Amino acid sequence: MTTIGILGGGQLGRMLALAGYPLGFHFRFLDPVADDAPVDTLAERVRGDYTDAAALDRFVAGVDVVTYEFENVPVATARQLAARVPVYPPPQALEAAQDRLVEKTFFRDHGIPTPPFIAVDSRTDLDAAVAQIGLPAVLKTRRMGYDGKGQALVRVAEDVAPAWDALGDVPLILEGFVTFDREVSILAARSVTGETAYYPLVQNRHREGILRRSVAPAPVTTPELQALAQSYAARVLDALDYIGVLAIELFQVGETLIANEMAPRVHNSGHWTIEGAETSQFAQHLRAITGLPLGSTAARGHVAMLNLIGILPDPAAVLAVPGAHLHLYDKAPRPGRKVGHITLRADDPAIFDDQLATLRALLR
Amino acid sequence: MTTIGILGGGQLGRMLALAGYPLGFHFRFLDPVADDAPVDTLAERVRGDYTDAAALDRFVAGVDVVTYEFENVPVATARQLAARVPVYPPPQALEAAQDRLVEKTFFRDHGIPTPPFIAVDSRTDLDAAVAQIGLPAVLKTRRMGYDGKGQALVRVAEDVAPAWDALGDVPLILEGFVTFDREVSILAARSVTGETAYYPLVQNRHREGILRRSVAPAPVTTPELQALAQSYAARVLDALDYIGVLAIELFQVGETLIANEMAPRVHNSGHWTIEGAETSQFAQHLRAITGLPLGSTAARGHVAMLNLIGILPDPAAVLAVPGAHLHLYDKAPRPGRKVGHITLRADDPAIFDDQLATLRALLR
Repeated sequence: MTTIGILGGGQLGRMLALAGYPLGFHFRFLDPVADDAPVDTLAERVRGDYTDAAALDRFVAGVDVVTYEFENVPVATARQLAARVPVYPPPQALEAAQDRLVEKTFFRDHGIPTPPFIAVDSRTDLDAAVAQIGLPAVLKTRRMGYDGKGQALVRVAEDVAPAWDALGDVPLILEGFVTFDREVSILAARSVTGETAYYPLVQNRHREGILRRSVAPAPVTTPELQALAQSYAARVLDALDYIGVLAIELFQVGETLIANEMAPRVHNSGHWTIEGAETSQFAQHLRAITGLPLGSTAARGHVAMLNLIGILPDPAAVLAVPGAHLHLYDKAPRPGRKVGHITLRADDPAIFDDQLATLRALLR
Repeated sequence: MTTIGILGGGQLGRMLALAGYPLGFHFRFLDPVADDAPVDTLAERVRGDYTDAAALDRFVAGVDVVTYEFENVPVATARQLAARVPVYPPPQALEAAQDRLVEKTFFRDHGIPTPPFIAVDSRTDLDAAVAQIGLPAVLKTRRMGYDGKGQALVRVAEDVAPAWDALGDVPLILEGFVTFDREVSILAARSVTGETAYYPLVQNRHREGILRRSVAPAPVTTPELQALAQSYAARVLDALDYIGVLAIELFQVGETLIANEMAPRVHNSGHWTIEGAETSQFAQHLRAITGLPLGSTAARGHVAMLNLIGILPDPAAVLAVPGAHLHLYDKAPRPGRKVGHITLRADDPAIFDDQLATLRALLR
């Protein structure tokens, strides 16, 4: 019996466990949250900080492999655990993804296009960066940003001072603003055996920095664009000796792709795979880190994923839509909080469009 | 937050919980087994007998609705619980399904064909029944039979005495042996709102009384046969004020169907629906008993379900087959024990046949 230890006890961990029980795995989580965590009803959780040695001891005892569902786990913790059990993805992947400057430098060093970027550690740095990159640009914290937090759009010169005032007390990065045609993401997997697999490109729609909606396979995608995204993902997998599922968010401009960020874990833009792909990203990640063969990444028809943010719609109204599936995370609704998602799947594109419109109306 | 209480803590309960967590449900189980139950890693279980009043109190406290995953729960228990919370399917469905004589009489009373059958309470009864029904026939215990247990085939006159010796200490039923073309089953659902849904007919293959393999939709099935099966299921749903998923196993002889038995719960011949139908039988059952709209029962391509009985194949060999999905029940392998199943799904019939042959070879 393989027991998988997971750092983080949120919805991604919950969906990993739901995908992993059928494969015969047991799970133990570590998460410091004092309230109920989304995994609490369905698995064992050690409640403790990621830097608490006693909690880490309890967490790792009897665990066969460790992974994470939250990429802001301290790298030092991942390295300490890796001295005792396999930790996948490897700690260097955490390290590369936690700091936007390191991440973008990593992309650039491996020939993956990025927006122009410059480190900003002072107001003087910021002025110089604005002069060099031009406006509009985006000022971001290098660490701990997610769901649009820790970012300020600098549209015109008058926005520079307020952006600095809002974010200037931590290391920053200024990035050129990309006027993209659309946002897409590529989900890739690499197993301990070296086997790799790539999902079809996903088209994503963010608002206020939070993913609202994904459609897969991304409409009107050329085989060349898919191949380009896969080639970028392959470079990341190789360079990091990566094991597990990796997500890279990209801006599409014409037929080119510009890397925005990566996540060394299962990803919100991959939730559509639960019903929408032959193998879900959650099962795929577990297969990858335990050395099982990777599964087919083929999409099943037309698929959309709609995030439930801050509010829960009437489940009966959602489930009355044919092909709609509901995923709740056992979280109390609060503004801006992801509390669940809906997957819509249909074979016929016209029916898909209709049902998607119905669901979007429900969420308004 | 709706908490669902489930009587029985086996693999059907485990799969109900896995399907129900995404819908936001909480679960509590009651099962007397002293060892680990398949639900123990992923839900709360009250360890107690179905007739233990204190255990029932602990089980039912705070539960919104009760269902079962095991149909040999005492009817009196279901009725006691039904005085406190809704119990679905209703206790009369348990009652109709627990006793083969009651069950077959119920079918006959509702115009659903059955094999000829006669109650047998003595050796004299048995001889008279054999004379009336003819041979071959099958002698069965009226209660507690499952997976071929409590049955004896009476092929020729010399088999009568050994069959009586093996089974004669409990109430019995003698049934005419049906020379069928194939075995099929129909899975139906009826919700508290009265909404009904029917899955495509499933073709089943038993050996030694245990289901080995299901294929869905059942190949070479006419719309008339599907309609006939649905009409029989509809009569059962109506007559019992049924709520939840119901399975009826049938013998197909030409274009007629003869009812063998029914199960007032999710059923092994419906496991293919997890990956193979738009809505799994487990999600459908939970939708039905909580009043949510029923989901689409459409099959996704060609689907097979292979039971893992007594042995666990190498998971890597199973998952190396494209379209194969593994479901383990967290049970130690023992001869004759169902420890998991494999689902195979493919869009192309030739690929499906090929992959199915590969999986069957793996299990030999």
